[in-house]
Amino acid sequence: MALKIALLGFGTVASGLPFLLEENGDKIRAAFGDDLEIAKILVRDDNEVNRLKENGHSYQFVTSIDDILNDPEIAIVVELMGRIEPAKTYILATLNAGKHVVTANKDLIALHGPEIQESAKAKGLAFYYEAAVAGGIPILRTLANSFTSDKIQRVLGVLNGTSNYMMTKMVDQGWTYEEALSKAQALGYAESDPTNDVEGIDAAYKVAILSQFAFGMTIAFENVSHQGISTITAEDVAVAQELGYVIKLVGRVEETASGILADVSPTFIPKKHPLASVNDVMNAVFVESIGIGQSMFYGPGAGQKPTATSVMADIIRIAHRLEDKTVGKAFNEFSRPTKLANKEDKCSHYYFAIETPDKTGQLLRIATIFNEQKISFRQVLQEKAQEGRARLVIITHMMNQLQLEAVQSQINQESDFKLLNAFKVLGE
Amino acid sequence: MALKIALLGFGTVASGLPFLLEENGDKIRAAFGDDLEIAKILVRDDNEVNRLKENGHSYQFVTSIDDILNDPEIAIVVELMGRIEPAKTYILATLNAGKHVVTANKDLIALHGPEIQESAKAKGLAFYYEAAVAGGIPILRTLANSFTSDKIQRVLGVLNGTSNYMMTKMVDQGWTYEEALSKAQALGYAESDPTNDVEGIDAAYKVAILSQFAFGMTIAFENVSHQGISTITAEDVAVAQELGYVIKLVGRVEETASGILADVSPTFIPKKHPLASVNDVMNAVFVESIGIGQSMFYGPGAGQKPTATSVMADIIRIAHRLEDKTVGKAFNEFSRPTKLANKEDKCSHYYFAIETPDKTGQLLRIATIFNEQKISFRQVLQEKAQEGRARLVIITHMMNQLQLEAVQSQINQESDFKLLNAFKVLGE
Repeated sequence: MALKIALLGFGTVASGLPFLLEENGDKIRAAFGDDLEIAKILVRDDNEVNRLKENGHSYQFVTSIDDILNDPEIAIVVELMGRIEPAKTYILATLNAGKHVVTANKDLIALHGPEIQESAKAKGLAFYYEAAVAGGIPILRTLANSFTSDKIQRVLGVLNGTSNYMMTKMVDQGWTYEEALSKAQALGYAESDPTNDVEGIDAAYKVAILSQFAFGMTIAFENVSHQGISTITAEDVAVAQELGYVIKLVGRVEETASGILADVSPTFIPKKHPLASVNDVMNAVFVESIGIGQSMFYGPGAGQKPTATSVMADIIRIAHRLEDKTVGKAFNEFSRPTKLANKEDKCSHYYFAIETPDKTGQLLRIATIFNEQKISFRQVLQEKAQEGRARLVIITHMMNQLQLEAVQSQINQESDFKLLNAFKVLGE
Repeated sequence: MALKIALLGFGTVASGLPFLLEENGDKIRAAFGDDLEIAKILVRDDNEVNRLKENGHSYQFVTSIDDILNDPEIAIVVELMGRIEPAKTYILATLNAGKHVVTANKDLIALHGPEIQESAKAKGLAFYYEAAVAGGIPILRTLANSFTSDKIQRVLGVLNGTSNYMMTKMVDQGWTYEEALSKAQALGYAESDPTNDVEGIDAAYKVAILSQFAFGMTIAFENVSHQGISTITAEDVAVAQELGYVIKLVGRVEETASGILADVSPTFIPKKHPLASVNDVMNAVFVESIGIGQSMFYGPGAGQKPTATSVMADIIRIAHRLEDKTVGKAFNEFSRPTKLANKEDKCSHYYFAIETPDKTGQLLRIATIFNEQKISFRQVLQEKAQEGRARLVIITHMMNQLQLEAVQSQINQESDFKLLNAFKVLGE
């Protein structure tokens, strides 16, 4: 008898599942030992049902979740509606009805994952979401399965395709932020309100999820600090190039002596670093660990087929575990009490771009501010003044969050200085 | 009660296991639910035992495999001796004794894997070898677990650290092959007889193993054609640069209409391709599939800690499966009848470097040879003649193995032409 699944929503990703069943049926059948059947699909209303039927879809569409919850033949429900509600309510109801759940909903996992996991665990049901982080890259399962023997020290990720496309064009083509954004919108990569992508919110959701798999620690979304790419100027990009870096929006989770830190921010990456060549809408997760050392997992971060492939991998995994009678194990079994890093332990090299008056002694004044915080410089670049204002660029040695805040506050107190930007710099 | 394992051999990789148990004990214990104990280690003879004890090792060393086979408390045996014999005999004896086996021995898997797998399967025992391909990169488990839902079309890999170190230096530093080899030997990357690394044999072993996981087809080692890097000249490297490529030793497995092809050869890689930035001793496996599209898995291909980490991941996997009572499933469950590609379906772009007399009409003669085989040119570069000989460089459009053989034979028949090199060129 075929294994029956139901889909909640039939948008871009969901409609990629029939493609995989069609093109890859033999292999999926071999993995299942049987057929996989999309038995029911929940859509919004009757208009939607009629529209889909007119487009030639012959699935059984339903408009009430109860038609799925009350169908004893459906074993797995795949949530692909996105957003928090009604997705959350439907998933909890599905678990209550004793069915396994697969989702690609990163917002939901980052904000309410633990609650849903608890519910699944209590009922011995599977709750998988490989597609929620870096779409087509099987990074969550790899962290859960292959890094059990290793101790991860830091995870760095290019996790948002839209902002990475924009940054690639700003670096390679010299486009401004505005030009890159309007092109990304024209191509459908960015939404009309691009906030989630360009301000690092989408990447921060993924960072929160990665923290559970890489460090066994659940970090609340509000503890993932995020800074976006909208303040990056053509000058920042040019000076990065000149000094041997490219700028990308990077998510980071790192374990320090006091605990973990998680953030998303524009970051200078040395051109030789593997993350520097992750371009356009591609994503990558770079892992630093005591055993393997450096490894990187690269692939498409979004898109219909890649995301559908990750969803299908979860479905097949559940089918295997049903067969093995081991279903109900947590997607990620690595769990420790969460400890957050102190500000003293949140360290990085930094890039500062500071506008100063074009008169003698300015570098000395700036140097004094940094020196008071015991921060030393690795590179300094003073650019030619224009219209009475000079632009000073500094790359620092390692400094911590307390030092950063002190320096920022001091620069801001000096009325004739203007702190244009401060970004992290990845060491070689 | 601790889970007891035995090691066969105590060389570089094996002595990395205690490091992981020490540094990562908590996480490994959490994964096991218990301690993992190295109960016995097989070494060559009493001299070796004495030497190790003098160096402060307090493990129980034995010099007869029977001390391990007859110990009912040992559940898992880890073979890290390398080479074919006595490793093969010991592994088969271990399986006969009802114990699970982990190995990192790629030569053995490539040459005798199916026989050993059959034996393990018949007895319901685990036989895992994640470390056999690309050392620290968890590529085999990823192919087995996360690509079940996808259909792979081609796998390309930089699979040999030694030759990749040499090629990186030849490209970046302009070293000759001989300079690169002697430096690699001085650093301990290459052995005094470097044949396995530089002639593509080591990479071919890995390609044979990748074929099983990516395509479910077992390809005999003698059907993996391999061409090494020893004929690559400084001129080849320079012209590659000029045309926008880097040269690397690339392993390939590809499914064509008639079957699979597997080979290892120097390959021109476009500079923008993710494999082009895999440098020094690092490895990477680049996967092209109908679902995910393009993905790449990057990391150290060898080394004590990375390889030990992969070995430990296998051990932990067995422990999990023992707990779940699902042990005995094949490492790779994807299996189809093997079909080999026809020569007509073995296609690539090619680079040709041909030495010709320095007189008019030579390009016409060469063009005629290619034209007769219906091969068209994508790029042609005629270099300035020296001492009466000219050097002609051609990048072709797609051509197959039959066309390649015909062109090579025709060029070789013309006594005043000399075919210097013919390498594959990866399309964009």
